Amino acid sequence: MEFTVQQIAEVLGGTVEGDPTLRIASLAKIEEAQPGSLSFLANAKYEPFLYETQASAVIVGRGQELRQAISPTLIRVDDPYSGFSRLLEFYAQATRTGKRGVEQPCYMGETSEIGPGHYRGAFSYIGDNCRIGANVLIFPHAYIGDRVTIGEGSIIHAGAKIYPETVIGRFCVVKAGAVVGTDGFGFAPQPDGSYKAIPQIGNVVLEDNVSIGANATVDCATLGSTIIRQGSKIDNLVQLAHNVEVGQNTVIAAQSGVSGSTKIGSNCVLAGQTGLAGHLTLANKTTVTAQSGVGKSVKEEGVLLQGSPAFNLRDSLRANAVFRHLPVLQQRLERLEKALNATEKP
Amino acid sequence: MEFTVQQIAEVLGGTVEGDPTLRIASLAKIEEAQPGSLSFLANAKYEPFLYETQASAVIVGRGQELRQAISPTLIRVDDPYSGFSRLLEFYAQATRTGKRGVEQPCYMGETSEIGPGHYRGAFSYIGDNCRIGANVLIFPHAYIGDRVTIGEGSIIHAGAKIYPETVIGRFCVVKAGAVVGTDGFGFAPQPDGSYKAIPQIGNVVLEDNVSIGANATVDCATLGSTIIRQGSKIDNLVQLAHNVEVGQNTVIAAQSGVSGSTKIGSNCVLAGQTGLAGHLTLANKTTVTAQSGVGKSVKEEGVLLQGSPAFNLRDSLRANAVFRHLPVLQQRLERLEKALNATEKP
Amino acid sequence: MEFTVQQIAEVLGGTVEGDPTLRIASLAKIEEAQPGSLSFLANAKYEPFLYETQASAVIVGRGQELRQAISPTLIRVDDPYSGFSRLLEFYAQATRTGKRGVEQPCYMGETSEIGPGHYRGAFSYIGDNCRIGANVLIFPHAYIGDRVTIGEGSIIHAGAKIYPETVIGRFCVVKAGAVVGTDGFGFAPQPDGSYKAIPQIGNVVLEDNVSIGANATVDCATLGSTIIRQGSKIDNLVQLAHNVEVGQNTVIAAQSGVSGSTKIGSNCVLAGQTGLAGHLTLANKTTVTAQSGVGKSVKEEGVLLQGSPAFNLRDSLRANAVFRHLPVLQQRLERLEKALNATEKP
Repeated sequence: MEFTVQQIAEVLGGTVEGDPTLRIASLAKIEEAQPGSLSFLANAKYEPFLYETQASAVIVGRGQELRQAISPTLIRVDDPYSGFSRLLEFYAQATRTGKRGVEQPCYMGETSEIGPGHYRGAFSYIGDNCRIGANVLIFPHAYIGDRVTIGEGSIIHAGAKIYPETVIGRFCVVKAGAVVGTDGFGFAPQPDGSYKAIPQIGNVVLEDNVSIGANATVDCATLGSTIIRQGSKIDNLVQLAHNVEVGQNTVIAAQSGVSGSTKIGSNCVLAGQTGLAGHLTLANKTTVTAQSGVGKSVKEEGVLLQGSPAFNLRDSLRANAVFRHLPVLQQRLERLEKALNATEKP
Repeated sequence: MEFTVQQIAEVLGGTVEGDPTLRIASLAKIEEAQPGSLSFLANAKYEPFLYETQASAVIVGRGQELRQAISPTLIRVDDPYSGFSRLLEFYAQATRTGKRGVEQPCYMGETSEIGPGHYRGAFSYIGDNCRIGANVLIFPHAYIGDRVTIGEGSIIHAGAKIYPETVIGRFCVVKAGAVVGTDGFGFAPQPDGSYKAIPQIGNVVLEDNVSIGANATVDCATLGSTIIRQGSKIDNLVQLAHNVEVGQNTVIAAQSGVSGSTKIGSNCVLAGQTGLAGHLTLANKTTVTAQSGVGKSVKEEGVLLQGSPAFNLRDSLRANAVFRHLPVLQQRLERLEKALNATEKP
Repeated sequence: MEFTVQQIAEVLGGTVEGDPTLRIASLAKIEEAQPGSLSFLANAKYEPFLYETQASAVIVGRGQELRQAISPTLIRVDDPYSGFSRLLEFYAQATRTGKRGVEQPCYMGETSEIGPGHYRGAFSYIGDNCRIGANVLIFPHAYIGDRVTIGEGSIIHAGAKIYPETVIGRFCVVKAGAVVGTDGFGFAPQPDGSYKAIPQIGNVVLEDNVSIGANATVDCATLGSTIIRQGSKIDNLVQLAHNVEVGQNTVIAAQSGVSGSTKIGSNCVLAGQTGLAGHLTLANKTTVTAQSGVGKSVKEEGVLLQGSPAFNLRDSLRANAVFRHLPVLQQRLERLEKALNATEKP
């Protein structure tokens, strides 16, 4: 995955100052760059690094002045930051998501269809009656059960498991090892103390531009659908239980868990390791801080919650500030009790 | 997966009122049903939905009276709820667990045996010297190591990993991506500050009717067995460490973790995101509320615990109620101190 | 996997007292041993078990005296504990990590290389331009992306996923279902409230002797590397975010999570279910107790932290001791207020 400085300059419409034949193998921050890498300078604050960097080449603005001798070759462009961003996307495409074609052996049920421009990695599995759009990438060991729908441009990473009936929109990403649509945790207690599994026959719906993290688990609905709406981003190792709904553009950070039938609004943020009880409703723009546990519905928009059990962030911060000094408070109380006894007695 | 109303009525021994040729593609709650779906009415409270539902057909009691004109076709049966339950199980069977036969390529060691009525998905792997019973379903990408035993009727879902020597009973379910029997986290500190792995040569035993959640992890014992007893249900992303024992009919909700050598009794409930320290014993019928952390053994049966560190639920609720008002308490204390100073001084 | 007592005695350089033809199928603790198993007696405290054990054979010291008749055959050696330890390692090797050769079908890109003495399980996948050392074991369903480097003697367990560009040192262990090098959780908020994925083009570097737990997730760096230094041990279901660094010989227990760009020192211990905020630095030898959440950097070495939010362990234990008695404190305060009103009024 090497390019010459000249090739990169042409892609960016830039001009080269220095050696255009240098070979670039990686992209790096200017303060961390090693020989063979390309970096950029967009913020004047970082200019001192330009004279120290080990980068082989640096993208700079057309008007960038040099106050000292420099070692890297320069590529001068109009907007270094957006130029570098384009290279990042190009690089990610080239190294991660540019796969096309079919590796053997792989498996696809005869009644399933997949659009042009796809990738099917070796040992990927597609069941029967699936409808898969154009430019969908299915990495090795991905499992796609029967009657699954996947929209164009979506990526199913290595070893992700998509259960039967799941509906996935366009430009979704399901990361490695994620499990989407497995049976929820529903058991009916029996008179003898044992539990009987309740059939879970619903599905999971991911709308467009949804991202599901590595090794996350999303259970299917008991009946109906577990739904993650457009643009929501779910991090690694998150658990979403049966019949959960997540609104648009909501972000759920790693290792959080949402219990059955809870409905989360749009533009919410759940920080890492948070937990939500079942059958709650969270209004739009609710924020829950890390490790908090929410046991009650939130009706007002824009609320910030902290703690386990969680309440208003400001009150929680104040209560925690006192918590640390509880032993001192206790001593002060004891002193008062003694003093009052002394005052009262005579 | 479509059936006519007539076919369904015959299965249930019911009579049709309306169009028996309608095609049914899904099952749904009466208040959420869409055209093409079948619903049921068992609870009089839901009768108003009968006149509004978009379901194509509804299962009702033989004596159900109609107060308004209705659009869905009716299937009249003796007990609508149990009729619908039978359909749920039939549907789950038809769409999820009715697979039989062998898809190619798949792998099975020559010295392994598997009973009749089984399913082996493409890319499933069975090592050497395994003994697998009748009607066992092994989904694609499941990994079954050497010398594993699996009882009749058990289901190993897509990408589950069953390590060598594991013993799985009858009618167990191991969900997608779960890892059963991997090496525990045992390392001996060395004089130079490094750690040396302690060989883990025990196994995991799942008794009958045990369920292991998606992407859960159950470590093998260092020596002997990590044991999950009959009927216990373990949810997604749970961690059970080496030499843990879980009693009968105990339920452990998602993202909980149990440290090494801890023994949990029968009919216990651990809610989501709970943690148990190592080498504890929990009496039967212990309940631990969500996000709690248990650091001490529980000897009395039926105890409810909350908090991190956890203690008696009732005391914990009371302490939390005061916790929120700590800043006010502090102010009241300050006021008292000032008043007492005033009282004392003269 | 059976050996005779005579064969085992020869391996250990021991002498047999009893039946040298007995067949041994497993190793066990002396107090739990069943017929067919071999145990050991190293600690005089356990001597009573020698006369009760059901083990077929027991390893004892050359000078061990017998006070009663015993049923097991004895293998007398110089040091029973280290003899048994050698058997444990031998057994683990024989049953778990002794695999060699190539099972079909498996996949390896033509431009990849792998050293001698390796194992490649059926359905294992190795992409293009990988450099894999000698004696590396790659279990079934393991996924190794393009341009991955793996040092000699490392083990990639069943269904582990190693993303492109990952660098793995020598004698590392990546357990089943772990995901190493997937895209981090980086999204740029857009003016319309949606999020755009930021390309993640860095990688993950595991130095020598690193262990990654089952179903754990380690994200690649945005740019540069997420690094886990020599000898560190990461347990099951742990989440390490983009650009995290973990120092040498640091232990992170199950279900813990470390947010983006946090740097953890050497010889630290994070207990189970802990969480670290992003962009922190933890000094060497920091210890974080279970379920704690760290929101601030730790500059001093050897600090012990507890709580969520976490602070000094000793202060936290004291504050928690008072916390349980908050309702009593509140009552005492109320009593004082009443008393003072009574004192003041007259």
